[in-house]
Amino acid sequence: MPTVKLVDENTNHPKIRAVFDDIKATKKIDRVPNFWRALAAHPANLELCWTQAKAIMRPGKLDMTTKEIIALAVSITNSCRYCINSHLAAVQRLGLDAAGVGELLAVVGLYNQFNKLAEGLQIEPDIFPKVEE
Amino acid sequence: MPTVKLVDENTNHPKIRAVFDDIKATKKIDRVPNFWRALAAHPANLELCWTQAKAIMRPGKLDMTTKEIIALAVSITNSCRYCINSHLAAVQRLGLDAAGVGELLAVVGLYNQFNKLAEGLQIEPDIFPKVEE
Amino acid sequence: MPTVKLVDENTNHPKIRAVFDDIKATKKIDRVPNFWRALAAHPANLELCWTQAKAIMRPGKLDMTTKEIIALAVSITNSCRYCINSHLAAVQRLGLDAAGVGELLAVVGLYNQFNKLAEGLQIEPDIFPKVEE
Amino acid sequence: MPTVKLVDENTNHPKIRAVFDDIKATKKIDRVPNFWRALAAHPANLELCWTQAKAIMRPGKLDMTTKEIIALAVSITNSCRYCINSHLAAVQRLGLDAAGVGELLAVVGLYNQFNKLAEGLQIEPDIFPKVEE
Amino acid sequence: MPTVKLVDENTNHPKIRAVFDDIKATKKIDRVPNFWRALAAHPANLELCWTQAKAIMRPGKLDMTTKEIIALAVSITNSCRYCINSHLAAVQRLGLDAAGVGELLAVVGLYNQFNKLAEGLQIEPDIFPKVEE
Amino acid sequence: MPTVKLVDENTNHPKIRAVFDDIKATKKIDRVPNFWRALAAHPANLELCWTQAKAIMRPGKLDMTTKEIIALAVSITNSCRYCINSHLAAVQRLGLDAAGVGELLAVVGLYNQFNKLAEGLQIEPDIFPKVEE
Repeated sequence: MPTVKLVDENTNHPKIRAVFDDIKATKKIDRVPNFWRALAAHPANLELCWTQAKAIMRPGKLDMTTKEIIALAVSITNSCRYCINSHLAAVQRLGLDAAGVGELLAVVGLYNQFNKLAEGLQIEPDIFPKVEE
Repeated sequence: MPTVKLVDENTNHPKIRAVFDDIKATKKIDRVPNFWRALAAHPANLELCWTQAKAIMRPGKLDMTTKEIIALAVSITNSCRYCINSHLAAVQRLGLDAAGVGELLAVVGLYNQFNKLAEGLQIEPDIFPKVEE
Repeated sequence: MPTVKLVDENTNHPKIRAVFDDIKATKKIDRVPNFWRALAAHPANLELCWTQAKAIMRPGKLDMTTKEIIALAVSITNSCRYCINSHLAAVQRLGLDAAGVGELLAVVGLYNQFNKLAEGLQIEPDIFPKVEE
Repeated sequence: MPTVKLVDENTNHPKIRAVFDDIKATKKIDRVPNFWRALAAHPANLELCWTQAKAIMRPGKLDMTTKEIIALAVSITNSCRYCINSHLAAVQRLGLDAAGVGELLAVVGLYNQFNKLAEGLQIEPDIFPKVEE
Repeated sequence: MPTVKLVDENTNHPKIRAVFDDIKATKKIDRVPNFWRALAAHPANLELCWTQAKAIMRPGKLDMTTKEIIALAVSITNSCRYCINSHLAAVQRLGLDAAGVGELLAVVGLYNQFNKLAEGLQIEPDIFPKVEE
Repeated sequence: MPTVKLVDENTNHPKIRAVFDDIKATKKIDRVPNFWRALAAHPANLELCWTQAKAIMRPGKLDMTTKEIIALAVSITNSCRYCINSHLAAVQRLGLDAAGVGELLAVVGLYNQFNKLAEGLQIEPDIFPKVEE
C-alpha cells in the first residue's frame, strides 16, 4: 500500500500537471505511471527526478534498450519489485525477446554470485581501467 | 589481502591447469586474472564457475558489450571493488569510450536512487511485463 | 505470511508478558506490534532485542524524531516493507509533516545514488572525520 | 584508485569550472572534493548531480544536520567508504559531538539488525502511515 | 506475479523434463518448486543452475543442514521472500527445531548489525585467516 | 582509517576495562580485537553489543562452528572486509579446513545468485515453513 496518496493525473496543480504532461509526451504513453503519481506527493522531488530522468534516459552513446537493460539489472540486484516489473516491460516494448531476457537474467545472476565470491576471497584488483584519455 | 593463496598460473594440478589454459584461450589473454587464481584454491568451485561463465559470457541475443555492461552495473550496485575495476576495463576493451561509461554510470546512479524512492513510497506495480509468449 | 506464530498479547509466559507490558508502557501504545509478537516465538531474542531497543531509542544527544528518521532512512535503504511502514508512522506521530517526509525521501534517494557513483568512480577518501577528541 | 582522472580544480572547461566555483561558494569550502572532481570526467553527470544536491541539501523542514545525519546513515548502510568519511566529517562540522555520533551509529546498527529480523520473520505490516493529508 | 510463465511439470520439452525429473529424484520431492519452473522459461539457465546446485548442495565437508542454514542466512540478508520461505522449510525438514531457528535468526541479526558498525567505524582488519595450507 | 580512536586495552575507564577483560576471558584471547576497541569510543554501545554477542555466540542448539559459519556467510553477503577476515579466521580456529571453507563459499555464491534470479523472476512462495509447533 503506497505511503502517500497518488496524485490524480488530471490534477490542477500547475507544476505537477506540467511534469505529468511532459512524462506522457516524452514516453509516448497515455497514463502516468504510479511511481510519478506517488512522487508528486512531494512536488519538488517530482520535478528534480523527472528533469534528471529525462536528461539521462534518452539515446546517446548508449541506446535506449541498453539503458533500460541497465535499469533492469540494477533493479533486480536491488530486489525492487515495482522497478523490476516496470523495466522488464520496458525492455520488452523495446524489442528484447524472451531469449534476450533470459540472457540478461543469467548475467545478472552470475555476477551477483561472482561479486560475493570476490569479496569472500578478498582479491585485490589486478585489472584496471585506462584512466588517461 | 586475499583469504587464500593464489594458485600459480603454471601449476601442475591437471584440472586447474586445464581451466587456466581454457580461460586464457577463451578470453584471448596471456595471464590468468587473480579472481580465477584465487577460486582455484577450491578446484571444484573453479570448474563450476568457469563452466558457467563460459556458457553465459558469449555473444547471443545480447552482444558481449551489453553483457559486460550488465556485469559492470551489477558490480557497481554491489560495490565490488575488484569487479568494478575488472568489468570497467572489459567494456573499455570492447570499445565503450569515456562518454559511454559516463552514461552507464548516470543510469546506474539514477536507478539506485529510483529503486529506493519506489521502496520509500511503497508503490504497487502498475506496469507488468507480458508473460505469455 | 509470518514464518512463526505471533504470540498472543495476553500470553501467560511470564518473561514474554513482562516484555510485552514494558513495550506498551514505554511506547505508550495499547497493543504490541507484530514485530515483537513474532520475535516472542524466540523468547531469548525478544528479551535481548527489547533491552537493546529500549536503551538506544530514547532521547539523548539525538532526539526521538531524529532517531526515528535514521531508522526510516536505514529501512528504506534496506527495502524492509514492514519497517518502512512502521517507522514512517512513527515520524508522523512525532510531528514530521508531509513536506518533511518528502525531504527525507529526497535525501535518502540522493545518497543511494551518490554512494553508487562514488563506488563506480572508485574515489579515495579525501575528507576525514576528526578522530582525536 | 579512481577509475577516471580527477579534473583539475582550475580547469578551463567553462561548464565544469562554473560548477566547481558554485560548489566552493555554496559549501563555503576552498577546495573541490574528489567526488565532484571525479564526476567532472562526465560533465553532464556533474551538472545534473550538483543541481540536484544543491536543491536537496539546504535547510527546509529538516535542518542541515538532520540531512547530513540521513546521508551518513544511508552511507553506512551501503558501506560506502568515501561517503562515510565525508558525511561523518560533515556532521562533526555541523556540531554533532562524539556522543551524538555514537548514538547515530547505535541506531543505524540496531535497525540494520531489526530490518533483517523482520525479513526472517516475514511479518506483515500492522502499523501504517497516515496517507490522506 | 511471476515475470515468466511457469513451465508445466509434465512438459514435453526433453531437456526441461530431464532436469525436472532429476530435481524430483535428487531432492526426493514429488513436485517441482516454482523457482525451477520459472527458470525453465530460459532452458539454458535452468540446466546451468541445476547442474551447479546439484554439485554444491550435497553433503561434503559441510553436511546438508549446515548448507541449508547458510542458504537461509544469505537469503535473509538479501531479503529474498521466496528463498526465505523455501530454505526455512528445508532446515525444518532436516530437523532444526524452533529453538534452533531462533538461534539462527539471532546470529543473522547480530552480524547484520555488527557488519554495519564495523563499516561505520571504518576499522582495518587486525585478525586474518591463515592463508598457507 | 578508523573514524574513532581505538581505546587502549589497558584503559582505566572502569566500564570499558570490565568489558575488555570479559571479552578476553570469554573468547580466550590475549588481546582485544579492533572492533571492540573502536566500539569502546561509545561505551554505551560497547556494553550493549558485548552483552548481546556474549548471549548469542555460545553453543546452544547450534554449535559454535555453525554460528561462526552463519556470521561469515552474512559478512560475505554484506561485503564487510573486517568481518570477513575475522570470521574466516574464527571458522579456521574452530577446525574448518580449506575444503570446508571452499564449500561454504560455493554455497554463499550460489544463493546470492539464486536470490537475485528469484527476484528477477518475481516468483511467489510455494513452499512454506511449518508455523504451528
